[in-house]
Amino acid sequence: MSTAHAPLIITLGDPEGIGPEITLKAWHALHATGPAFAVAGGFDIFAGLAAALGLPPPVQVSSCADAPRVFSRGLPVLPDTPGIRAVASIEDAVARTRTGEASGLVTNPIAKSALYGQGFAFPGHTEFLAHLTSDMSMAGERGPVMMLANTQLKTVLVTIHQPLRDAISSLTSEAVIHTAGIAFEALKRDFAIGSPRLALAGLNPHAGEEGSMGREEIDILAPALKTLRAKGIAISGPMPPDTMFHAEARAHYDAAICLYHDQGLIPVKTLDFHGGVNVTLGLPIVRTSPDHGTAKDIAGKGIARPDSLIAAIRLASDIAANRQLAP
Amino acid sequence: MSTAHAPLIITLGDPEGIGPEITLKAWHALHATGPAFAVAGGFDIFAGLAAALGLPPPVQVSSCADAPRVFSRGLPVLPDTPGIRAVASIEDAVARTRTGEASGLVTNPIAKSALYGQGFAFPGHTEFLAHLTSDMSMAGERGPVMMLANTQLKTVLVTIHQPLRDAISSLTSEAVIHTAGIAFEALKRDFAIGSPRLALAGLNPHAGEEGSMGREEIDILAPALKTLRAKGIAISGPMPPDTMFHAEARAHYDAAICLYHDQGLIPVKTLDFHGGVNVTLGLPIVRTSPDHGTAKDIAGKGIARPDSLIAAIRLASDIAANRQLAP
Repeated sequence: MSTAHAPLIITLGDPEGIGPEITLKAWHALHATGPAFAVAGGFDIFAGLAAALGLPPPVQVSSCADAPRVFSRGLPVLPDTPGIRAVASIEDAVARTRTGEASGLVTNPIAKSALYGQGFAFPGHTEFLAHLTSDMSMAGERGPVMMLANTQLKTVLVTIHQPLRDAISSLTSEAVIHTAGIAFEALKRDFAIGSPRLALAGLNPHAGEEGSMGREEIDILAPALKTLRAKGIAISGPMPPDTMFHAEARAHYDAAICLYHDQGLIPVKTLDFHGGVNVTLGLPIVRTSPDHGTAKDIAGKGIARPDSLIAAIRLASDIAANRQLAP
Repeated sequence: MSTAHAPLIITLGDPEGIGPEITLKAWHALHATGPAFAVAGGFDIFAGLAAALGLPPPVQVSSCADAPRVFSRGLPVLPDTPGIRAVASIEDAVARTRTGEASGLVTNPIAKSALYGQGFAFPGHTEFLAHLTSDMSMAGERGPVMMLANTQLKTVLVTIHQPLRDAISSLTSEAVIHTAGIAFEALKRDFAIGSPRLALAGLNPHAGEEGSMGREEIDILAPALKTLRAKGIAISGPMPPDTMFHAEARAHYDAAICLYHDQGLIPVKTLDFHGGVNVTLGLPIVRTSPDHGTAKDIAGKGIARPDSLIAAIRLASDIAANRQLAP
C-alpha cells in the first residue's frame, strides 16, 4: 500500500477513553485501502483490545515508514517513549511529524483535567501543539485557529472556549482579520481551493438590522471586512447567522467565519454529528482530530463509533497531499 | 370541502412584499385538498396577481364560513376594512378569529419600519396580536412565546429580538420557567403530545463545563430546572448546545428551550430552510406565520416560494383541530 505522501501518525489519546478503541476500529475500516498510519505507543493496550474485539493483533514498527508495508495485516504501533503516556505520545508524534517521517498528525482525545494534576501546563491540546512547533518556520500567518469541517460545511472560529459573555466582550476587528486571513490561506494551501470565498457571520439576531439590534456588526465587523477585502480576500457578510447555513446559502462560500463556539459548532454538528473533524489551521504541521471527547462513559464497551476519527484521518491525508502538491 | 374545524384566516401582510403572491400560490397548492382559508382584504391585489400568474381569479366572500364552498374555485377574499391596509387586515382577522368565525390566524410578513411612521406603536406583529387579544380569557399562562417549528425540530425562545449581549444580561430563572411552562402546555394542547419532554440548552460552550466556562448554567438554569421539575415538567439539561440538535439527540425531546435567537433558529433553518413555521404560544387564539420577512427585493417577480406559508397554514389547521379535540 502506498500513497502520494508519507504515512500519518496518530496519538494514543487518553488510555482510559475511547481513543485506542476507535483507532483500532479505524485501522480495521481502512486496512485494505489506506491512508496508512502508525500509532505513537500503546502496543499492550492495542494487543488487549484486538483480542477483545476479535481483530488481528497490532504490529510493532520502529518508524512510520514501515506502516504501509504492514498496514493491511495489523495496526502499526510505534514504541512507547518515557513520560505520562498520553503526553509522551503527543511529543513523539509531533517529533516524527516535524522530521517528515509522518506527513500529518491526527490526535485522539485527551482528558485535560487529568493532565493538569500531572504538570501539564497548557489550556488544551491545540495550545500544546502550537508550543511544540513554535520554533518551526512556516509560510503565512501563525495560528492556531480552529476549523470544524464535514463534507457539507466548514466553520472557523474567532473565539473558542470562553464563556459566551466573554467571547462577545473579547471580540475585536483584529481577531476577525487574523482568523479570516489564516482561513483564507488554509483553504488555498490545505484544501486546494484556488479562489476561496469566505462568509462572516454576524453576532446579533438578523446581523443587528443596521444597528437596531446590536452595534458589533457596525463597530467591529464592518471595519474588519473592509481591511480583509483590501487585502484581496473574498469575504461576504456580516450574514444573519440563522440564514447562512442551509444548503443554498452554503453554496456561496467555502468556509464560514463564526464569532463564537456554538455559532460554528451547532450547524456543523446538526448537519452531521458523527463525521465532524477538527482541523488546526495556522500550524507548521498538518493536524486534525476527531470532534469529540474521551467519552470515558462508554470506553471499554466496544460501542464507540470511529466515524469522526476515520474522517479526521482521511482529511489529514488529503491536506498532506495538497501541501505536497502546493507550489 | 370541509374540515373538522372552522376555516382559517390569513392576513394580507405588506402589500409591497411577497405576502399576496405566496398567499395566492398557497391557495393554488391547497385548493383541492384544503385546509380552507380566507384572506382578510386585498381583492384588487389578488385579482391583478392572479391574472399576472395565470391563476383563477379570487372570489369575494363576506365570511370565513363561505371559504370551504368556494375554495376549490378561487382564493376567498374578505372585504377590506378602513385603516392602513396591512394593519386593518390584522385587526379584522383577529376580530374574526376571536368570534370563532375563523379557527386560527396565519399572518403574512409586515414591514414594521414602514408602519412605525404611521402610528403603529408595537415592537412587532406578535406584540400587536397579544394586545388585540389581551382581554380574552385563556387557559394557562399567557405569552407570547415564540416557537420555530419544522417537521424535524421545534425550538422555543427565552429571548428573541435583542442584541446578543443584552439577551445574556437579561436572562433570568423566571424567564426560563415562564417560557418552558408555556411550551409544555402548548405541546399538550396544541400539538397533542400527552407527556411532553423538553430539553433546555445551556448558554456557554459545553454548557459551561461545571462552571469552568461560564456560570449561567449553575446560577440561572439549574434553579429554573429544579422549579420546573417540581411542577412536574419533564425537562432535561442544561445541554451542551452544539450536541443537542442532531437526529439522535432530537429523539429525546419534543421541543428545545433555547436561550437566544440564533441558538434556536440556526438549527431549525439549517435543517429545513423553507419549511420553518413561526408559532406564537401562550395566546388565546391560534396563530402561526411563515418564517421569513417581506422579501421586497423579490416581490412582484413571481419567484417567491410559498413553502413556509403552506407549512404555517397546515400547522395552524393541525393546532386548531387539536384544540377542538382537547378536553
